[in-house]
Amino acid sequence: MPSAAMWRNPAPASLGDRLGGALDRLREILFRAPAGAAGVRSIEATIRPVGREAAATGDRPGRARNRVTLVGAGPGDPELLTVAAVRAIQAAEVVLYDHLVGPGILDLIPAGAERVCVGKRSGCHSHSQESINSLLERHAATGRRIVRLKGGDPMVFGRAGEEIDHLRARGHEVTVVPGVTAALGCAASAGISLTRRGVSRSLTFVTAHGREGDLGEPDWARLASPTGTLAVYMGREQARRVATGLTGAGLSPGTPVLAIENGCRPDERRHWTTLRGLIEDGPLPGSGPTMLLIGAALAQGMPEEVAAILEATA
Amino acid sequence: MPSAAMWRNPAPASLGDRLGGALDRLREILFRAPAGAAGVRSIEATIRPVGREAAATGDRPGRARNRVTLVGAGPGDPELLTVAAVRAIQAAEVVLYDHLVGPGILDLIPAGAERVCVGKRSGCHSHSQESINSLLERHAATGRRIVRLKGGDPMVFGRAGEEIDHLRARGHEVTVVPGVTAALGCAASAGISLTRRGVSRSLTFVTAHGREGDLGEPDWARLASPTGTLAVYMGREQARRVATGLTGAGLSPGTPVLAIENGCRPDERRHWTTLRGLIEDGPLPGSGPTMLLIGAALAQGMPEEVAAILEATA
Repeated sequence: MPSAAMWRNPAPASLGDRLGGALDRLREILFRAPAGAAGVRSIEATIRPVGREAAATGDRPGRARNRVTLVGAGPGDPELLTVAAVRAIQAAEVVLYDHLVGPGILDLIPAGAERVCVGKRSGCHSHSQESINSLLERHAATGRRIVRLKGGDPMVFGRAGEEIDHLRARGHEVTVVPGVTAALGCAASAGISLTRRGVSRSLTFVTAHGREGDLGEPDWARLASPTGTLAVYMGREQARRVATGLTGAGLSPGTPVLAIENGCRPDERRHWTTLRGLIEDGPLPGSGPTMLLIGAALAQGMPEEVAAILEATA
Repeated sequence: MPSAAMWRNPAPASLGDRLGGALDRLREILFRAPAGAAGVRSIEATIRPVGREAAATGDRPGRARNRVTLVGAGPGDPELLTVAAVRAIQAAEVVLYDHLVGPGILDLIPAGAERVCVGKRSGCHSHSQESINSLLERHAATGRRIVRLKGGDPMVFGRAGEEIDHLRARGHEVTVVPGVTAALGCAASAGISLTRRGVSRSLTFVTAHGREGDLGEPDWARLASPTGTLAVYMGREQARRVATGLTGAGLSPGTPVLAIENGCRPDERRHWTTLRGLIEDGPLPGSGPTMLLIGAALAQGMPEEVAAILEATA
């Protein structure tokens, strides 16, 4: 069982210490309990334990347990972290992170904390999901406070379910801090609502690549809804296949598409086209992670000159 | 054109002033520019202008424009606000908010700022979308800094598209700060991943009520995907209709359902059932806003004793 001292940041005058003061003050002001309430809410009360069993023990002071917190790092911009995410990162002793988590966010990790990149790019070692599960468990078993940092929201295409199951089966408590998922970060950045009265009444997130298991080709007939908006995560390389599938299932070739590369990062780029354009114009430009937003609702945000060009080439 | 002084909080020693110091310190530490960069990033650079025209003018210092910021208030817990959202609320001179935005979040509004509730419950006046649009425009025209605060994420079932169109057509700049949408807040709180390899490869958000315009009954055949997860916003009153529609379109009556009332609030309650249960067991308990999470992926988080009861009554 770790001592209380182990939960503190061992590096004097580190980023963690300096941020700690500001966060304490922020907490003091932000989360003043109303008069008569039980007191200022602690971070533990907010980052909720998973499941009922955990909830039954998680709030007992003095009962230290091996904890892993899955934290959504949001779409890329550090300002789009939640307050709870900033706190969890600041309290970490070990952070395991994906390659999609940007440098501005990694800068928040305390200087004394261990950093482990488990992504597949940018100089990180490539890890299978199974080896990430084992690595997480080994770190959790040390009794240190572990943060598993994932791009966007952990519960959307983040393999969080597998990590939670693996850890809980071995007796570790797991808590989750949600994040702004990439599709919503991109929509805000582009200023386009993904649902709209009379136009789009549903919003569907999918991945186009085959890595989500053994389910075969996406069910294009279900996805090709003329009254829904589609957000295709990691869609650049599969853009043509997506457009072929959707038009083949009956969606209009003129349906607007906004491709956003590196959404919510300083190097964000937007590319307007249509399903027809994805099929006929060759590969999308760029090389960074790309979100495809597809549907009639996108017409709201299409610049007039783009609409005119698309109209002329239809 | 407002003077610089108008952008400051007029109430001395207000919550705004007190928070301001902590936020300045937080910003100073969180967003240190790397050596040689242009300097500490400002809030304006992060809360991005909508569209290209706005982007072209938004960064010019000294050129004050009438600004409205649509801010996602997240799923309920103030700690699930983004850092950018906290800042935008703190900088507001007028805040127009929905009834779904909780009191802990409204406490962040500066004491000197005007608060306007445009929701439909909790003692708020009922406003049509058209009257909210007009009200926003009238406030924007005063030159004050306006925040339009919406529960969850503004771009998901938030009518943000209509407000953005209305304001931009009248020359007002609109920026958007995304938020944690309710479905993802609920998933984190319950510790359940909404996608899962080999189980669920898509995630769809829908509303069941008819307020999203003239599109008639939801397309149950598209929504009844055995390899997708469904999040039904504001689903309590329509739960039986949803379950009847989905099973009628072929989804298994034994499909797990987690109903979460008041998700991410201190009074959050979870209710496990199945599509069959929604049809046969009468109305869901409770009266607060309720999210229905539906699909095979939910089985991950179902407590064993619940699974046993559902199995026995199947």
